[in-house]
Amino acid sequence: MAIIVQKYGGTSVGTIDRIKNVAKRIIEQKEKGNDIVVVVSAMGKTTDNLINMANEISDNPSKRELDMLLSTGEQISTSLLSMSLQAYGYQSVSLTGFQAGIKTEGIHTKNKITDIDIKKIKEYLSKGIIVVVAGFQGVNEKGDITTLGRGGSDTSAVALSAKLNCTCEIYTDVDGIYSVDPRLFPNAKKLDAISYQEMMEMSSLGAGVMETRAVEIGCKYNIPIYVASSSKNIKGTYIKEYDKTMEEKMITGLTVSDDILMVTINNVYYTSKNIARIFEKIAEYNVNVDMISQTAPFEGYVNVSFTVPRSDICSIDEIMNELKKEMKEIEVSKDENISKLSVVGIGMMNQSGVAAKVFKLFADNDIEFKQVTTSEISISYTIDSNDKQMAVTILAQELNL
Amino acid sequence: MAIIVQKYGGTSVGTIDRIKNVAKRIIEQKEKGNDIVVVVSAMGKTTDNLINMANEISDNPSKRELDMLLSTGEQISTSLLSMSLQAYGYQSVSLTGFQAGIKTEGIHTKNKITDIDIKKIKEYLSKGIIVVVAGFQGVNEKGDITTLGRGGSDTSAVALSAKLNCTCEIYTDVDGIYSVDPRLFPNAKKLDAISYQEMMEMSSLGAGVMETRAVEIGCKYNIPIYVASSSKNIKGTYIKEYDKTMEEKMITGLTVSDDILMVTINNVYYTSKNIARIFEKIAEYNVNVDMISQTAPFEGYVNVSFTVPRSDICSIDEIMNELKKEMKEIEVSKDENISKLSVVGIGMMNQSGVAAKVFKLFADNDIEFKQVTTSEISISYTIDSNDKQMAVTILAQELNL
Repeated sequence: MAIIVQKYGGTSVGTIDRIKNVAKRIIEQKEKGNDIVVVVSAMGKTTDNLINMANEISDNPSKRELDMLLSTGEQISTSLLSMSLQAYGYQSVSLTGFQAGIKTEGIHTKNKITDIDIKKIKEYLSKGIIVVVAGFQGVNEKGDITTLGRGGSDTSAVALSAKLNCTCEIYTDVDGIYSVDPRLFPNAKKLDAISYQEMMEMSSLGAGVMETRAVEIGCKYNIPIYVASSSKNIKGTYIKEYDKTMEEKMITGLTVSDDILMVTINNVYYTSKNIARIFEKIAEYNVNVDMISQTAPFEGYVNVSFTVPRSDICSIDEIMNELKKEMKEIEVSKDENISKLSVVGIGMMNQSGVAAKVFKLFADNDIEFKQVTTSEISISYTIDSNDKQMAVTILAQELNL
Repeated sequence: MAIIVQKYGGTSVGTIDRIKNVAKRIIEQKEKGNDIVVVVSAMGKTTDNLINMANEISDNPSKRELDMLLSTGEQISTSLLSMSLQAYGYQSVSLTGFQAGIKTEGIHTKNKITDIDIKKIKEYLSKGIIVVVAGFQGVNEKGDITTLGRGGSDTSAVALSAKLNCTCEIYTDVDGIYSVDPRLFPNAKKLDAISYQEMMEMSSLGAGVMETRAVEIGCKYNIPIYVASSSKNIKGTYIKEYDKTMEEKMITGLTVSDDILMVTINNVYYTSKNIARIFEKIAEYNVNVDMISQTAPFEGYVNVSFTVPRSDICSIDEIMNELKKEMKEIEVSKDENISKLSVVGIGMMNQSGVAAKVFKLFADNDIEFKQVTTSEISISYTIDSNDKQMAVTILAQELNL
C-alpha cells in the first residue's frame, strides 16, 4: 500500500459542492488501495473575510492573534471534507496543524516548519482512515498556533510527503506547469516534467503556481511533486530530480513579473563607501533589492539603478529622503512601468549563447532592456512594460516554449 | 489583586462594534487593578451557520467532526476580542480550550470538563496580560477537540472560576435573574441574590438564563456567580450559597416551560409488570420522562399520563407502536397544548402550605391542573397552555414575585 499526500487549494474547496467533488477524487485514489493524507486550504474567500474582520478592529492586529484567527479557515474546510468523505461511506478524520504534529518556528504569520511528528497520522492510516490535515498552520514551542505565510498549504503538503516518504500531489486551479504563462502566450506548452532547480528559479522569478519554499523541501528530500487540475482529469506536471530525458531542452520556461519598481539614483559621488551606504540603508528597512546596475563613472559621478518589490514603495520614499540628507547632490526617480522577463533552463548551464540569442531578438525587434542579471540556470531582463507582450511572444516562439 | 472571570455570550460579541464594547467593559475592571480572564462564546449566528454547512454535507455528520467545526466559532471571537483589547493599548492573549488546559471526557458535542490545567493562564495573568479563553470547548484524552453542549461557555467560565478560586461574572442579554420571566409577567421582580439550589431547580425547570450544569459547579466549589447585562450598567443577580438574608421569602421564583408533550395511555391492564414495561420501553429510547400520574384502577384498568420533551415526539410514536403490539387494548393520546408551571423556593423546605395555597388559587380561578409533582424546594403543575398567562399572573401577584 502506497501512501499519497494530496493537497487541494482554496478554490478547489470553495463551496460545499466542490468539497463533495474533492471527496470523490480522494475516494478514487483510496479505492486503488492507497493510504491517503489530504492537505486542504481554507475555503475560497474565508481567509480574506477573516482578515477584513481583524482590520475592522485594528490597523495593526497582533500577528499572534492573526494566526489564531486565520487558522480557523483550514479547520473549517478539513472538518467539512472529513464529513463529506464519511457521508460517502469512508472513514476519515480531520486534524489541525497542531494535532497533525506540525512544529514550526519563526515570526507569526511567517513561520517555518521545523519538524512533523507523524505518529498520529501513521496510526490513523494503519486503520484505513483517510487523514485530512489543515494546511498552512502548525504550532510553535510555546504552544501558540502559527501560520506559514503565502503558499503555506503547499509547504505543509510537501513537508508531510517528505516525512511520510511518498509522492505529493498538488491539485489546483491550473492544470500543470507551463513554459510560459498561457495568459500571455496562449500557445504555451505544458511541461510533463520540470526539475526542482528550474521550478525553484521559476517560482522565485514570479511564476505563481507554487511557492519556492515548497519546491525547496521537495528538492531537499527528493519528493516528486505532481501538479495538476483539481477539477479536470488531464495530465499535469511532475516536479522532480533532473534527469536525462529533460536534457535536450536548453530553455524550460519563461517567467514574467510585473510587481516591481525600478529606482534610479543619479549623481552619486562615486566612492565605494557611498555605494555601500545606499544598500546599507535599504537593508535597514528590510527591503529586498533584486537587480542592480550602475553606469561607468563620469567626472567622478555615477548613476545607480535597482529594482525592488512594488509593495515597498513607501519604504523606498523614506529611505531616499534619508539618503538625500547625507548625499545632497543625488536625484532620485522611480519607474513603475517596468516588467521583469526571465528565461530559465537547466540546459543553460552547459550551453552558452542563450543570452546572446535573447539580446539579438531584442535588438531585431527594438526592445530596449534596462538591466540584465544572470544565475546559473536563468537570465533576467527588465524592460518597459509596454514591450512586455511583444517580448514574451517573440521569446516564446523563437525559443520554442 | 483579585482575579475575576467574566463571560460574554454570543449576542454580546455578535458584531465587531459589540466586541469593541465588550473590550471597553473588560478594561474598566482591569483598570480597577484586577486580573481578568474572559470567556467568550461564538459571535452571534456563527454556530448556526457552521451547523448549516455541516447539514448540507451530511444528514448525520460525525460528532467528532462537528466539534472540530464548531470550535472554530469561539476561536474567531477570542482572537478578535484580544485584538480589540490590544488596540486599546492593553496586553491580551487568546487561548483555545485546549491551550487553556480545559480537559474533557464523554461523547462528542456533549463533553464534560474533568479538569483544567491553569498553569498557562496563571503565567499570563502574572504578567498583567488579559487572558481570553474560548468557551464551550476543550480537549479529550486522545487530543481531539471537544465541545460541551448547550450553555457550554457558562460551564467553562464557572469551572475556570472554581480552579482560579474567584468570582464568576456572566454577562448576557438579560440583566439578571427574575422571579418570573418578565415576558410573561411584566412586573416581575429582579432578584438581588438567589441560592445555588433554587437556581439549579429553576434552570432545570426551564428558566433559560443559565444551564443547570454551570450552577452545579458553582455550588460544588462555592463560587459566587454574578449574572448581569452585557450592555447596560445596572445591578444584576448573585447566585450564591443560601444565607439568612434570603430566608424570609418562601417562594423565590416561578418558571414556565412550554416545550413539553403530555402522553396519556388509556386502558392499561393494571399490573405492576405492565406499568414497569411502559417506562422500560421509554428508557430504551433514551427519552426522559418528567411528570407521571396514574388514575386509580377501575375494573382492573388504569390510565397513565406522563410528560416528555416535545422534541422526542418521533421516539414516542415508535415506542407507542411497539407497546401496542404487546398490550393490544391500550389507547394512546398526545397533548402538545400543555405548559408546566413550577414554583421554586428554598423557604418551602421549612414552611408548609405552598401547595395548598396554589391549589386554592387555581380553584378560585377555574384553572385545571393535570399533574403535580414536588421536590424539596419546588412544586410543578401541568396545565392547559391556554390557562398559562392567567396562571402566571395570579401566582406572581399572590406570591409577591
